[in-house]
Amino acid sequence: MNIEVCFTPDEYKTEDYEKFTAVVIDVLRATTSIATAFSNGCRQIVPVEQVNQAFQKKEQLYPEAILAGERKGLLISGFNLGNSPLEYGRDTVQDKTIIMTTTNGTMALNKAASAQKVYAAAFVNGMAICSKLIEEKRSVVILCAGTEGRFSVEDALCAGLIVDRLQDHYHLSDKALAVQAMYEAYKSDLVARVGQSSHALYLTELGFADDVKLCLQHDVFNLAPVFANGVLTL
Amino acid sequence: MNIEVCFTPDEYKTEDYEKFTAVVIDVLRATTSIATAFSNGCRQIVPVEQVNQAFQKKEQLYPEAILAGERKGLLISGFNLGNSPLEYGRDTVQDKTIIMTTTNGTMALNKAASAQKVYAAAFVNGMAICSKLIEEKRSVVILCAGTEGRFSVEDALCAGLIVDRLQDHYHLSDKALAVQAMYEAYKSDLVARVGQSSHALYLTELGFADDVKLCLQHDVFNLAPVFANGVLTL
Repeated sequence: MNIEVCFTPDEYKTEDYEKFTAVVIDVLRATTSIATAFSNGCRQIVPVEQVNQAFQKKEQLYPEAILAGERKGLLISGFNLGNSPLEYGRDTVQDKTIIMTTTNGTMALNKAASAQKVYAAAFVNGMAICSKLIEEKRSVVILCAGTEGRFSVEDALCAGLIVDRLQDHYHLSDKALAVQAMYEAYKSDLVARVGQSSHALYLTELGFADDVKLCLQHDVFNLAPVFANGVLTL
Repeated sequence: MNIEVCFTPDEYKTEDYEKFTAVVIDVLRATTSIATAFSNGCRQIVPVEQVNQAFQKKEQLYPEAILAGERKGLLISGFNLGNSPLEYGRDTVQDKTIIMTTTNGTMALNKAASAQKVYAAAFVNGMAICSKLIEEKRSVVILCAGTEGRFSVEDALCAGLIVDRLQDHYHLSDKALAVQAMYEAYKSDLVARVGQSSHALYLTELGFADDVKLCLQHDVFNLAPVFANGVLTL
């Protein structure tokens, strides 16, 4: 069994990974918010790529759904929630369907859709994802959502956390070795060091410094959201 | 001033880096062999992308030149030297012109040719390159040659060495932060850990384990080969 890592969605070649489990990571903040929503009793999440698709899905299929997501890190006009995990509390999301569109994360999920199985992972649910992967004994491709097509240090670090925990069970590609090394260097001081990354600096400027800290907490939720047939569920 | 890193030649967008200094790295083994050749008195090195171009250049411009390089890591038929730095001794290369074609390194050099200045770097001459970069006070793009278009851990680590030494003078991109972290994790045990990389494993299989060790030695040559007008010189 192998572990491969794609630093950006462009590197993900659908035909190479049909027999793999794909793990999609968008630490800041989509996959962290997804895990948070499920921890608070959300029923399902429908990731869509475009804002107008979100409105259409709501009208046609899920009239009671909450609209959530961001553009440029900010709330979308006409939407109920932004992309901060702090907004996905139990009062808001319990038993609800959420239709979500974000700049990087939802696109990455759709890109990985043809893999054997697709999980949404972040630091907050890393161990739960690793347990599933070890149980399932299949090669793994970790797809880092990145930021607008560019490499993001925080997604690579979360990939590194997963590789670090799985390494005894798999053959590691050079990119898997690389993210593991990054995580090794950063883990003792993750918040301060990720704070230098371009997306963390941007979110901090927008007033979301608390989100960055929250998104770097490890293993607070024991859940593994699965993406299948266009819908995320537990 | 910024430091950017390209993990593969595909990531290098010529128009983005016209005002930058480019540092091309192919640790295993082209840029290590280039530095070794200059340390042994080689006059100039002409990197070309294709085998037939090497024969043409020799015939048309440099009848006395040595032909050097590799395909699949091995000596090319009709060539004088392979790509092992051990072959570039003083007896062989002093005062000579070398025409060189390798799978990754020479292609990366030509890709970076339009930058303001282009250096060829490896672990063996890392400090000499850093001294030049600090003196010249220009933004830097580090181009990792990779392996047949794929990410190579050893090139990223050498980029990390350079970023680590330059960090006080520059703004670091996310990829610069990433390679620095990788180097931090690997530096105390570089030979053993790089030994797990796919290209190091391949070279070891071919019998070049000594080359891998040699290519990871730091700062044995105080020289900075410059690539300009199609030719590498000191």
